[in-house]
Amino acid sequence: MNIPVRRGKDVKAGRGTALRCKGWRQEAILRMLENNLENGEAPDNLVIYMSIARAARDWKSFDRIVATLTTMREDQTLVMQSGKPIGVFPGQATTPLVIMANGNIVGDWSGEESRRKLDDMGLTVYPGMTAAAWQYIGSQGILQGTYETFMSVGRQHFGGTLAGRLLLTSGCGGMSGAQPLAGKLAGASTLVVEVDQVRIDRRIASGYCDATTDDLDDAIARWLAARDARQPLALALCANSAAVLPELARRGIVPDVVTDQTYPDPLKGYVPAELSVAQARAMRQEDPAKLMALARQSVATHLRAILGFMDRGAIAFEYGNSLRAEARAAGVEDAFRMRSFVDLYIRPLFCQGMGPFRWIALSGDPQDIYTVDDMILDTFSSNHPISSWIRLAREHVKFTGLPARIGWLGYGERSRLALLVNEAVANGKISAPIAFTRDHLDSGSAALPHRETENMKDGSDAIADWPILNALLNCSSGADLVAIHGLGGRGVSAGLTIVADGNPDTAERLKRVLDGDPGIGVLRHADAGYDIAIEQAGRFGLSETIPPGLSE
Amino acid sequence: MNIPVRRGKDVKAGRGTALRCKGWRQEAILRMLENNLENGEAPDNLVIYMSIARAARDWKSFDRIVATLTTMREDQTLVMQSGKPIGVFPGQATTPLVIMANGNIVGDWSGEESRRKLDDMGLTVYPGMTAAAWQYIGSQGILQGTYETFMSVGRQHFGGTLAGRLLLTSGCGGMSGAQPLAGKLAGASTLVVEVDQVRIDRRIASGYCDATTDDLDDAIARWLAARDARQPLALALCANSAAVLPELARRGIVPDVVTDQTYPDPLKGYVPAELSVAQARAMRQEDPAKLMALARQSVATHLRAILGFMDRGAIAFEYGNSLRAEARAAGVEDAFRMRSFVDLYIRPLFCQGMGPFRWIALSGDPQDIYTVDDMILDTFSSNHPISSWIRLAREHVKFTGLPARIGWLGYGERSRLALLVNEAVANGKISAPIAFTRDHLDSGSAALPHRETENMKDGSDAIADWPILNALLNCSSGADLVAIHGLGGRGVSAGLTIVADGNPDTAERLKRVLDGDPGIGVLRHADAGYDIAIEQAGRFGLSETIPPGLSE
Ligand SMILES: NC(=O)c1ccc[n+]([C@@H]2O[C@H](COP(=O)([O-])OP(=O)(O)OC[C@H]3O[C@@H](n4cnc5c(N)ncnc54)[C@H](O)[C@@H]3O)[C@@H](O)[C@H]2O)c1
Ligand SMILES: NC(=O)c1ccc[n+]([C@@H]2O[C@H](COP(=O)([O-])OP(=O)(O)OC[C@H]3O[C@@H](n4cnc5c(N)ncnc54)[C@H](O)[C@@H]3O)[C@@H](O)[C@H]2O)c1
Repeated sequence: MNIPVRRGKDVKAGRGTALRCKGWRQEAILRMLENNLENGEAPDNLVIYMSIARAARDWKSFDRIVATLTTMREDQTLVMQSGKPIGVFPGQATTPLVIMANGNIVGDWSGEESRRKLDDMGLTVYPGMTAAAWQYIGSQGILQGTYETFMSVGRQHFGGTLAGRLLLTSGCGGMSGAQPLAGKLAGASTLVVEVDQVRIDRRIASGYCDATTDDLDDAIARWLAARDARQPLALALCANSAAVLPELARRGIVPDVVTDQTYPDPLKGYVPAELSVAQARAMRQEDPAKLMALARQSVATHLRAILGFMDRGAIAFEYGNSLRAEARAAGVEDAFRMRSFVDLYIRPLFCQGMGPFRWIALSGDPQDIYTVDDMILDTFSSNHPISSWIRLAREHVKFTGLPARIGWLGYGERSRLALLVNEAVANGKISAPIAFTRDHLDSGSAALPHRETENMKDGSDAIADWPILNALLNCSSGADLVAIHGLGGRGVSAGLTIVADGNPDTAERLKRVLDGDPGIGVLRHADAGYDIAIEQAGRFGLSETIPPGLSE
Repeated sequence: MNIPVRRGKDVKAGRGTALRCKGWRQEAILRMLENNLENGEAPDNLVIYMSIARAARDWKSFDRIVATLTTMREDQTLVMQSGKPIGVFPGQATTPLVIMANGNIVGDWSGEESRRKLDDMGLTVYPGMTAAAWQYIGSQGILQGTYETFMSVGRQHFGGTLAGRLLLTSGCGGMSGAQPLAGKLAGASTLVVEVDQVRIDRRIASGYCDATTDDLDDAIARWLAARDARQPLALALCANSAAVLPELARRGIVPDVVTDQTYPDPLKGYVPAELSVAQARAMRQEDPAKLMALARQSVATHLRAILGFMDRGAIAFEYGNSLRAEARAAGVEDAFRMRSFVDLYIRPLFCQGMGPFRWIALSGDPQDIYTVDDMILDTFSSNHPISSWIRLAREHVKFTGLPARIGWLGYGERSRLALLVNEAVANGKISAPIAFTRDHLDSGSAALPHRETENMKDGSDAIADWPILNALLNCSSGADLVAIHGLGGRGVSAGLTIVADGNPDTAERLKRVLDGDPGIGVLRHADAGYDIAIEQAGRFGLSETIPPGLSE
């Protein structure tokens, strides 16, 4: 068989219906690996994102993975240790083709310095969440996740929509640049403050921003006008947030929703109010101590302004960027009065087993994704969160790599969709198998006390049993790929991939895996005492699975 | 069905052939849990050993576990989080009945203080290795492990036997008290120095020690005489090691093998040479600082004497008790010139997939174990390490709880035995199913940089991917119970249990699981660069499972 081996910048996912492997399940995993690199940041170095999260230990490992996937049978199991293939063991046709443990390090040795040393020694990789598990599908996740958060804010506080609301945020960079479009898609009149014009221009070019100005009065006028007209808007103001926010407050303008996605590190990210971007960059070299002091002051000012809005009725939350911790270090004692987005807006979804589910058209044909889009619009009611997203995504999301879609679905819904898709693959309505996967940031699959599991109701933020159980369950119930990731000393996460290959026997496995995966997430949250999760567990019959036992 | 529920001190493992569960696999797991408690240290508190390692979160959890095991089907999976049953999910009849994650905590939160806090909050348990995985079978493991170490020393340095050799060690307490008998069983003339006569008397009573004296001249005479006569001996000298060892050196007596199993903690364990046991105990309250200083001095003297023997040709090794670290803290800069027992004597066995395999007669009938003993003597050559052990064990090991046997078997051998046993269960030669399990301290199932994985050839001591992969593989290949344990910030381990129920279909699963489990251990050591493991992986065909890949 002629395997088109491509490396580095050239890696492209296989497409079409011809197989290079002994079956579609193996082929699917191979295409996911290739797609991971096709979407990667620095594929030459196997780096997928964050400058360090890698898809394989090295190119030799990559070659051996490809050689293994193209020759292994479906009743075998490939064992992957931190991006290196270790062996192929006899398995079962209904259990994983690939099992992975990436980046796991014994606690006392898991700090950054020690982790880096083990990485330099070639013994581990930083796996990120999806990178080493071959599940990255490009930047669609950021837009969708940000949109989902804003929608959740709308549902919780504004009767279901941000239309006619003022959304204020900061940062228009790598990930933060998804905010203006996400805010607009969620219906809000969105103003994003960004100090660097270059960043704004890039987002204007990509359609993530409608317009830009560096005039505060102009910005305010357009922002308020859109609010009054209930007109969605994505407007960037080129200015410093530590100056703009207090000024808005002075003028008596209170946003309905306020958050922030600057990079608040006082040395590496945050531009102090007194300096231009260029000045800050120069000072980083010349007088880091001074830069640090200035940036700390500005971060404090920035957060104090947000807290001020909060006290005047605004919905305020931290958006995963450690603004509170930095501000507290800068002297804002009550920084943690503001809560985080996971805690407030994502956790209620996790309690229902909802999370960033995704599916990839292994054919490479966008039509297959559109077919799934239509199935979703048919299947789920028009006021289900996913329905409005699917309509928007179709218009706004450009495919990168293999066509793929992200959509937040919950317990029962994921398997429902997967069974429909499996049928459609069987009867040819979809041209080739579809791979289902999800971010590791999901209902039952992450333990990250500074983000995903911050401030759990029962204090179980750091309990890492949950993602491990999630992976063991997915393994026993028959996912095609299962991964457990250690994220330095900061977290543990778990991932899975399962392929709807159109085989009728696969249906049972899809049902079991795609119910169990969010199911254990619901139970994790029920165990922590969340009412929604307890209620959902009851509704789904999950809470009756353990008999009550005997007396107490 | 009438379930005899017993709690606390009363828990006894079910025996005989009547089932309380829907199948033997479930019944086996239930009996293992009960047997765990039957052998436990403080069953009233669910404590199995080490004062803190527990079998279940609390009695309510225990009751719910029992209720679940007695009602679940074999195609279901019970999910256990740190000793608490969380839910029962649809599974497959050929994958685990029980999956467990116990005591796993995110790295930065896994230190002792934080771990204890989470334990106090009722969110985790300290699982030990076998305690929370329902695999403890009493103290047989200590005797057998110590014996195996001494035998390995004999094979590596003395042509296969310690007969006619002087073995010197210290400590005759809880675990250390296995040393005199183990040394004697290994053929050596064994002298154990123990400062506390009470401890010695206890071991004389239990048959672990032949004789005791507090006269050094007498001890030396008997020790040397037994050596000269090639007569195995287990003699305890009541004295302080920090005084005895330098005195032996002064007299020019050099043991062939020297180690130590005192508890070298200068405050909680080690008795300084200047003090009696009673004085040391009193000083612990009255002047801990002084006790600490004295004990440190003695620990240093003790280790320096051992290093002196080493320089004069003795085989010296640390036996898992942190003597070197304590001595270094006391100023012995070159303490780590001496290596550890795992590194020197156990790792070569791990490289062959050999480790503390064990089997339990679920009938409760000792005859079933004797039948397995006979199968082993028939099946494995008489110079296989296990053969001499089985003969000795039959004579010296008293059963506690369900009759059980430990025996070190390697890759291929474990499955060979299990298939024979499964047949014997089927044809009634064995009266009821046999459960197979092992210590977590096994070839591929532990990452403990201070013990099991100390000083790995490639520096991979702290890489925790391996036990996790071990568990995922056992899960996908179909063990009946799989567990991943976090041991504070110090380690990660994995355990499995699988039942030979006599069903012909079980044979395939037994073969797959009991080859895969040590198989991944062999590959873990081959990956770290150990020649024996590389050679074994080749011999077993494990190294050819990954195709070489393409070019470099
Ligand atoms: N789901 C999540 O938790 C999530 C999602 C996205 C981003 N984040 C976090 O958000 C942060 C930003 O990520 P990024 O990739 O966009 O980083 P980035 O550095 O690319 O972007 C940050 C932007 O903030 C701008 N900025 C800095 N100081 C400013 C100031 N005083 N006023 C206005 N603008 C200022 C910078 O010019 C830059 O464009 C990170 O900490 C990231 O982890 C979290
Ligand atoms: N496989 C292993 O790694 C392994 C196996 C067994 C024990 N150990 C280690 O060995 C140590 C001892 O375990 P234990 O359960 O026997 O503890 P223990 O406290 O019950 O026994 C230690 C004994 O040492 C004696 N002792 C103290 N100071 C002495 C001195 N100066 N001279 C002579 N005797 C002295 C004490 O009186 C006591 O009886 C522990 O650190 C344990 O972890 C390791």
